[in-house]
Amino acid sequence: MTQTVLAADFGGTHLRAAVVTSDGEVISRLDLATPEHAMPAEIVREVTSLLARAARDARPAPVAACIATAGLVNAEAGMVIFAPNIPGFRNVVLTTPLAAELGIPAFIENDASAAALGEFRFGAGRGSRNLVHATLGTGIGGGLVIEGRLYRGSQGLAGEIGHTIIDPSGPRCRCGSRGCIEAMASGVAFANRARILLDAGKSAVLHEIVGYRDPTGADLHRAAQLGDTLCEAEIRHGGHLLGLALGNLVNVLNPDTVTLSGGLLAMGDMLLQPMREAMDSLAYGPAAGTTVKLSTLGGDGGLLGAAAVAFEYMERR
Amino acid sequence: MTQTVLAADFGGTHLRAAVVTSDGEVISRLDLATPEHAMPAEIVREVTSLLARAARDARPAPVAACIATAGLVNAEAGMVIFAPNIPGFRNVVLTTPLAAELGIPAFIENDASAAALGEFRFGAGRGSRNLVHATLGTGIGGGLVIEGRLYRGSQGLAGEIGHTIIDPSGPRCRCGSRGCIEAMASGVAFANRARILLDAGKSAVLHEIVGYRDPTGADLHRAAQLGDTLCEAEIRHGGHLLGLALGNLVNVLNPDTVTLSGGLLAMGDMLLQPMREAMDSLAYGPAAGTTVKLSTLGGDGGLLGAAAVAFEYMERR
Repeated sequence: MTQTVLAADFGGTHLRAAVVTSDGEVISRLDLATPEHAMPAEIVREVTSLLARAARDARPAPVAACIATAGLVNAEAGMVIFAPNIPGFRNVVLTTPLAAELGIPAFIENDASAAALGEFRFGAGRGSRNLVHATLGTGIGGGLVIEGRLYRGSQGLAGEIGHTIIDPSGPRCRCGSRGCIEAMASGVAFANRARILLDAGKSAVLHEIVGYRDPTGADLHRAAQLGDTLCEAEIRHGGHLLGLALGNLVNVLNPDTVTLSGGLLAMGDMLLQPMREAMDSLAYGPAAGTTVKLSTLGGDGGLLGAAAVAFEYMERR
Repeated sequence: MTQTVLAADFGGTHLRAAVVTSDGEVISRLDLATPEHAMPAEIVREVTSLLARAARDARPAPVAACIATAGLVNAEAGMVIFAPNIPGFRNVVLTTPLAAELGIPAFIENDASAAALGEFRFGAGRGSRNLVHATLGTGIGGGLVIEGRLYRGSQGLAGEIGHTIIDPSGPRCRCGSRGCIEAMASGVAFANRARILLDAGKSAVLHEIVGYRDPTGADLHRAAQLGDTLCEAEIRHGGHLLGLALGNLVNVLNPDTVTLSGGLLAMGDMLLQPMREAMDSLAYGPAAGTTVKLSTLGGDGGLLGAAAVAFEYMERR
């Protein structure tokens, strides 16, 4: 018989919960604005009660629950160490109150790691064995599946591919280092490049799109689509660097599959073609036999990732 | 009772064989100059007969054999795909004739991967669970132990950390890419930097050491030790880049241990201090809790690595 689990995706703006079957089918879902200016204990109560509501009428009853959340997570302790999107949410244990309320085992996981297992189990990575998942959005995150299991590393920090350095003399990253791939080819990085073009008065097209507000990576792409060659060169260069960073991962991990998700994919081949070419240019690029695939889970990557983590725990017990 | 295995380290100049116990004790060893200008079939016969000789009087009799070799290896097929140090040695199956001759299972492994498992089992990495091993010599190689097992990747290419790019505008690497860490902080890279200093007439000290022969990385270090600040700066900069490359691996893999071996370690703190500082400067540097250790296996890293691989195969059967 099909089993179900409770899955939650705990983001900066929305808290989403769903009941998911072992085939990756979402059979019910709930959505809540993430409580603002709330105390951690209050947030925990909100999360717990949302998941309890989601579980109430599910048939078959969920056998486990998992919350995927941005930030630093100690999966073993069930604790959110640091959540960048939720001020004050530090060293909060989520799993114990949740398990007590629901009467089933509860787990948490970093959202990018969960998304990797989600792609592996339900998405573009089905049938793979060693998978690198990269989330290409405002920031760049990642997760690793090694020999068919989510790989967390010794302190639960594995997969932080956004802060691998690709150019030691590159721009400063918000993490403090220079030339992290996140500082060179993320949504924030592209927005910064757009700002530089605007300030230098180098793109009339971009100026027409943006006016006097802050530019975004999407604005840079729009200007490129409208024929601005400088904007297009920025995106292509970012794609090239992204390909080198992913190529580095291929050289180190020799995965069979790399899956990609996130808002930057909307830039299409302008980003992805130079990315693939750069990946293939590395020493073991083509020999590694790695296939690059785009996520098929869309906005449900976090939810289905959380579900995949819950199922993995229950199977490994 | 203690078991033994036959281990061999198949290098460009020497072929070494030993009988090794499950505690990592070498109870007998043989050494042979690698046959030059020989046909592959002849080399296979030499290897097979050396190992048979090494096995003859060993008590207890070895239960398995493993050859560690430079280059590209298909461990599953028991085949050397490409050995950079042995001209013409391509797509040669080593394990089948060896197993037939010895009457025990035979395996092969890339030498840097084998060395990683050797450190994990017998050396500086004992007690770890997730380990990155880097060999810092003429070239830069590496191997990964993940969750207590040697990780080979999908095509046996995992651990090629020497060809991860740390600066896309850096010098050309022999692999074709620009700015691989091997092109910036290996023995060859330091020799190239020494050549540049000599050609520019910038180091009288180096010139005095080298005369008109080709400089080596060791020459660069010697000149630095004698007070040449430009030579010292080159080594420190190489150490810094090495630390960024290793820090990238820590960010991706969050290992508990990084072990280092190879000739560059003779450069001591001049190389290692800036290396450690750069590693710690990365986003998850100190938080990752990774310990850096120097190999305790010395010149026996390849042999003991091969032994570790043989024991792992026998335990997993």
